[in-house]
Amino acid sequence: MALAIAADPVRTIVTGMATPMVALLDGTIADAQHPLVHVDDMGLLRGDGIFETTLAVDREPRDLEDHLARMRASATMLDLTLPAAADWRRGVAAVLAGWSGDREAVVRLICTRGRESGGPPTAFVMCGDINPHVAVERRDGVSVVLLDRGFVGAEVAGMPWLLAGAKTLSYALNMAARRYAVAQGSDDVIFIGRDGRVLEGPTATVVIARGRTLLTPPVEGILAGVTVRRLFRDAAAAGWETVTAALTPADLASSDGVWLVSGVRLLAPVNAVDGARRPIGEATEELARVLNVP
Amino acid sequence: MALAIAADPVRTIVTGMATPMVALLDGTIADAQHPLVHVDDMGLLRGDGIFETTLAVDREPRDLEDHLARMRASATMLDLTLPAAADWRRGVAAVLAGWSGDREAVVRLICTRGRESGGPPTAFVMCGDINPHVAVERRDGVSVVLLDRGFVGAEVAGMPWLLAGAKTLSYALNMAARRYAVAQGSDDVIFIGRDGRVLEGPTATVVIARGRTLLTPPVEGILAGVTVRRLFRDAAAAGWETVTAALTPADLASSDGVWLVSGVRLLAPVNAVDGARRPIGEATEELARVLNVP
Repeated sequence: MALAIAADPVRTIVTGMATPMVALLDGTIADAQHPLVHVDDMGLLRGDGIFETTLAVDREPRDLEDHLARMRASATMLDLTLPAAADWRRGVAAVLAGWSGDREAVVRLICTRGRESGGPPTAFVMCGDINPHVAVERRDGVSVVLLDRGFVGAEVAGMPWLLAGAKTLSYALNMAARRYAVAQGSDDVIFIGRDGRVLEGPTATVVIARGRTLLTPPVEGILAGVTVRRLFRDAAAAGWETVTAALTPADLASSDGVWLVSGVRLLAPVNAVDGARRPIGEATEELARVLNVP
Repeated sequence: MALAIAADPVRTIVTGMATPMVALLDGTIADAQHPLVHVDDMGLLRGDGIFETTLAVDREPRDLEDHLARMRASATMLDLTLPAAADWRRGVAAVLAGWSGDREAVVRLICTRGRESGGPPTAFVMCGDINPHVAVERRDGVSVVLLDRGFVGAEVAGMPWLLAGAKTLSYALNMAARRYAVAQGSDDVIFIGRDGRVLEGPTATVVIARGRTLLTPPVEGILAGVTVRRLFRDAAAAGWETVTAALTPADLASSDGVWLVSGVRLLAPVNAVDGARRPIGEATEELARVLNVP
């Protein structure tokens, strides 16, 4: 029995995702066309759970161990019992072994606190098509609006009950911010702290270039990006200097390039900020090679 | 096929909720023992949806129209298409008609953005037992810790992309704050803004008494409480003055009573703040009568 009901058409950001493939952590493939989650799952009722998203290319997940490490950090912040890394690897392997879609696929690892009535956590791995718009954004870039995040990153970093830096299923705010950007005619968002410092995008880390130096904000009140870590490691090997430093909107404006860096889109150059067009960073192609963007 | 997997025991705040009853908005009763939600539901993957919770006494839901009105306000903030009020009433009536549990029951109305692959919103009504601890908390009160919310209520109230004041499914932070309180040896939380002003509890509105005056903070960066509105309306009829005013922790300390007011627990006197015991408000019994607490 489906829970969806007849209603007015839903206004939504079209994701272009068809029904995904799903694997349980014992390696079983489940049928995602059928409901698999109970109504009293705390992931649904309270967004009480965590997730990771990465890209698989030719059935090979990128940076899986780094994502598993971050998932463990998120689980600690939420006091959530996480299945063992070996179980996640088994689920990822199962879902990718069965994948027959495009060369690039989105892999998602989901773990909730389980049912309100008790029992183990709910854990599964999904695999699906990437949004066809991703290729366009990698090449032509994204326009962003700067939105006030309402807090100071360095302040909330010291308040563990706020879960800043945990990758939780409670992403309604991140989704709302992107809808707000789209309603303003832009594609995406860069959050700014009350102290005027650049934080992050709703689903991405901010990186800028000054000459041959790449800069990203400190992990204070924001998520520790897996892909930016890879970028900095491999860019350093390719002769870039890499720096973690407080950044302001003025730093974005005066930079030689601004990018949103994340696990699926990988590297999206920012082509406009608050309606002001800017050239996309000349280094985009080089950094895409460094990141091994398909 | 269930998604739960064998794992270490989950540390959780025991809710004492057995499997709930579920009704769809066409009045059909669904079997909550079976999975009813798809893995790609945006309510699960992103906490992208809204909810309302209220108490039913003798199968009669309290303040249902006020909850439906607030749900509509939340839907507007999330740009979510909400089924019509008549559909929600039908679902609530169906689930309560079938209820054979205790005299008091928790009724929850859930609406998510639906599946990522598209289609209508996911909407259903649940009914379940109340936590047996509720009766104790109404009588003996709760101890709270004051936790910094990281923002200024009046500031974030003007930033719609932050969804302050929307009752979304993204409640991981609210749950984390309560776990933090429990770990400190307290029961619950009162959030304080960066400007030192009292905000709200993770699942409740704060009310204090000064003599025969009841005070509550302005709805700035916090949820508009349904039960506090009822309390203020009925307390005014019973001779109380009711005031909306900025409050500080010093106001809590010097008050003649502090209560957490919400839709299920209804009225819980605060018996300690940050470890300092305080007498529960003498007006607790009178206000419980005003609120018609079972």
